[in-house]
Amino acid sequence: MAIELKGLTKRAENYSQWYNELVVKADLAEQSAVRGCMVIKPYGYAIWEKMQQTLDGMFKKTGVKNAYFPLLIPKSFLCREAEHVEGFAKECAVVTHYRLKNDPNGKGVIVDPEARLEEELIVRPTSETIIWGTYKNWIHSYRDLPVICNQWCNVMRWEMRTRMFLRTSEFLWQEGHCAHATAEESQARTVQMINLYAEFAEKYMGVPVIIGVKTANERFAGALNTYTIEAMMQDGKALQSGTSHNLGQNFAKAFDVTFVNKENQPEYVWANSWGVSTRLMGALIMTHSDDNGLVLPPHLAPIQVVIVPIFKNDEQLAKITEALQPVLARFAELGISVKYDDDDKRRPGFKFADYEVKGVPVRLAIGARDLENGTVEVMRRDTLEKSVAQFEGIADQVAALLEDIQQNIYQKALKMRQARTYKVDSYEEFKQRIEDGGFFLCHWDGTPETEERIKEETKATIRCIPLDGEEEEGFCMVTGKPSKRRVIIARAY
Amino acid sequence: MAIELKGLTKRAENYSQWYNELVVKADLAEQSAVRGCMVIKPYGYAIWEKMQQTLDGMFKKTGVKNAYFPLLIPKSFLCREAEHVEGFAKECAVVTHYRLKNDPNGKGVIVDPEARLEEELIVRPTSETIIWGTYKNWIHSYRDLPVICNQWCNVMRWEMRTRMFLRTSEFLWQEGHCAHATAEESQARTVQMINLYAEFAEKYMGVPVIIGVKTANERFAGALNTYTIEAMMQDGKALQSGTSHNLGQNFAKAFDVTFVNKENQPEYVWANSWGVSTRLMGALIMTHSDDNGLVLPPHLAPIQVVIVPIFKNDEQLAKITEALQPVLARFAELGISVKYDDDDKRRPGFKFADYEVKGVPVRLAIGARDLENGTVEVMRRDTLEKSVAQFEGIADQVAALLEDIQQNIYQKALKMRQARTYKVDSYEEFKQRIEDGGFFLCHWDGTPETEERIKEETKATIRCIPLDGEEEEGFCMVTGKPSKRRVIIARAY
Repeated sequence: MAIELKGLTKRAENYSQWYNELVVKADLAEQSAVRGCMVIKPYGYAIWEKMQQTLDGMFKKTGVKNAYFPLLIPKSFLCREAEHVEGFAKECAVVTHYRLKNDPNGKGVIVDPEARLEEELIVRPTSETIIWGTYKNWIHSYRDLPVICNQWCNVMRWEMRTRMFLRTSEFLWQEGHCAHATAEESQARTVQMINLYAEFAEKYMGVPVIIGVKTANERFAGALNTYTIEAMMQDGKALQSGTSHNLGQNFAKAFDVTFVNKENQPEYVWANSWGVSTRLMGALIMTHSDDNGLVLPPHLAPIQVVIVPIFKNDEQLAKITEALQPVLARFAELGISVKYDDDDKRRPGFKFADYEVKGVPVRLAIGARDLENGTVEVMRRDTLEKSVAQFEGIADQVAALLEDIQQNIYQKALKMRQARTYKVDSYEEFKQRIEDGGFFLCHWDGTPETEERIKEETKATIRCIPLDGEEEEGFCMVTGKPSKRRVIIARAY
Repeated sequence: MAIELKGLTKRAENYSQWYNELVVKADLAEQSAVRGCMVIKPYGYAIWEKMQQTLDGMFKKTGVKNAYFPLLIPKSFLCREAEHVEGFAKECAVVTHYRLKNDPNGKGVIVDPEARLEEELIVRPTSETIIWGTYKNWIHSYRDLPVICNQWCNVMRWEMRTRMFLRTSEFLWQEGHCAHATAEESQARTVQMINLYAEFAEKYMGVPVIIGVKTANERFAGALNTYTIEAMMQDGKALQSGTSHNLGQNFAKAFDVTFVNKENQPEYVWANSWGVSTRLMGALIMTHSDDNGLVLPPHLAPIQVVIVPIFKNDEQLAKITEALQPVLARFAELGISVKYDDDDKRRPGFKFADYEVKGVPVRLAIGARDLENGTVEVMRRDTLEKSVAQFEGIADQVAALLEDIQQNIYQKALKMRQARTYKVDSYEEFKQRIEDGGFFLCHWDGTPETEERIKEETKATIRCIPLDGEEEEGFCMVTGKPSKRRVIIARAY
């Protein structure tokens, strides 16, 4: 697994190329032989696992239970909800046969034409249809409600243009699907989950997000309302990082899922669904990383601290290793994941560059002289600052430093976003400034026509109507019609 | 989620029906709308999650790293290894198209004939081919070795006859794929993993297993050797519960994966792969459960202890709840998962039956009189014995009881297997006795012809050549030819 450490394109030169190279150089993922599908490499997967564990714990605290539903969805299921099929049936992987056979011409194997399925099966692009087809059997009375299920799984959407983590044909995600007795309860869960995503993004990923509602155009196919968290990348583009959909009774009606309420009356069930995916990896990478490589938030870094001994011979190494034992023990007590890299086949300089490109938050280097002086060299990845610290109590110092880094990268990203969020009231000004990226707070007349025009003329979209936005009388920057609040417009991934 | 608690078929009446009913009544899984695919319900999935977490921790201690490889495999990849394609290409889900379109006749959507894939994609039945296609890019020098990767994922094999957990078209599993510099190292890892599976089965699942080698006929398609763990179910049938394959250089040759060794010579890489699946759920259910429902090993039970308060009014409930606070705190300290079921909509008798069918290892019941007397009623699920215990120190007593149950169910299963394992030297005797189930230790002449004949005439297969079997001169029970050791023959799931 030789890594080319040098020659990472600079962000200012070509942000997109920097990203693509970084994903590979940091050993996170690579293109596979299958069009649009990636291989998530062990280092990348370790970050995703930390995300999963953290989110899963947060979910379970709110009463979520995990389950598993089939990968393949009968075509007829996908067609039951009218808007949903428009949104998802078009670009998808279709299973039509269930057998291969030897080619009579002796050229390997071919699809057996006699093994054609009566009804085609679709590799799930999302699971509302199969899940609501199942919930029909689970739900009869108000006593069966709520159902709060989630699954961690793979899904597939046949994307034309793919980029690792940001948009791949197959991706990993979680999808929560809830059934409630009342509209109010379902709405409350919808909002609860988008808030949970925001909390995760900010506290663990160090990624500041804006919580808002999508416009009708940008809604999930089949939803009454889609809530979103939107993050700003370093190039000023938006990245939709998680969504939560209030589905009303649409899927309950499509799959005839009713329950007998407390008044003994049949009623359709109220639904919501919510998900985040490996796309979060893209958000994580693009928010914090720099021209030297990845910068990881300590709360999600698989290796939080790397310790590199500097030694000329085995004797020196043995001394350093011995001196470090209580330090390693203390790190273990503190629950901090440490890699002690005493591999003698790689030189320290190579190791430094490797851990830098991999975004390990803190690097300690210690040599024979440090040992004599009772010191250790500390490098923090976020600022690349080096300092000399007292060896005594180093683990506790580093624990505090990790928290400092976590806060610092969040604040840095927040300041960047604040500095690049603009109130603009003139469409002419908007058209000029959108070229430089950023979030634009603008008045919009609320019509899909205007939204469409903005998109066509500027490649920017309405990211959301921010939930914490204040009411403010104004005029649509495009049509001059009245508007009651500003929306966020940006170019997006 | 109303559950029909009564009317579970008895094992002695119809073991197979008992199993099918139990899976549904214990709320573990159900058939889905997709042929041969199941829905794993929250309670069943919670058990699988505990299995995953435990195994994943055991894997990581041996240096395994998780990664993720694509769901879809190009047909040509599947055909690269000659035996492998024979074994896996036949019954599989084939993706031939990537788009649906509106039916011009207005009847929903149809497959778009213009969106036919140039090369068909197969939903992975196992991932050796796509993974070795990837390893080619990862491995160049002996320094890149070993590669010890695992993935947790879904796979699909188009099974004709399916049974929940035991044999489903889609199932969940983990598959480890290792690349080594030497044959010895690869063999050592192959054996290490089958031993790890055996340890997991015995310590956590409470399922005694026999470790052995498969015959050539029963080997994984493309392997030099397949190691297996075989468990005996209560009907005397065998269940193959985990396998580890020494793949030699077969996949390295098929995908041209070479490395430069320390002597600077190119060499093919040595491979192994190993996996366990949701089939383990079937083993767990069938090994311990009884006519009253599921019996779960405490080490894998999602709810280890349920506490049911018996009360006539809110005041009584409040007193019981208050008295239980230190007990619940102590359980939490001990890391024991407890459900305190104070739901007043279900009567205690209903709760008792529900937790019994769900296999919760220990049930505590406490009423107003118990509170006065300083006692609590304890029911252990494995023996269904009730006893009255002192309320003082109950959590610690239960902790010990849980360990006792864990040991007891393992010993019970072990004794059952020992009592039903027979040395038989006459084929006539074998043919009679195989009808009653059990493991038969027999001499076999080592030929596939004899193996095939036994299978045809008795529906029994050679489960394995046990690793701890002693050398013993003997004569094949079918042909009378010489044999050096006994093999295990049984009917199997």
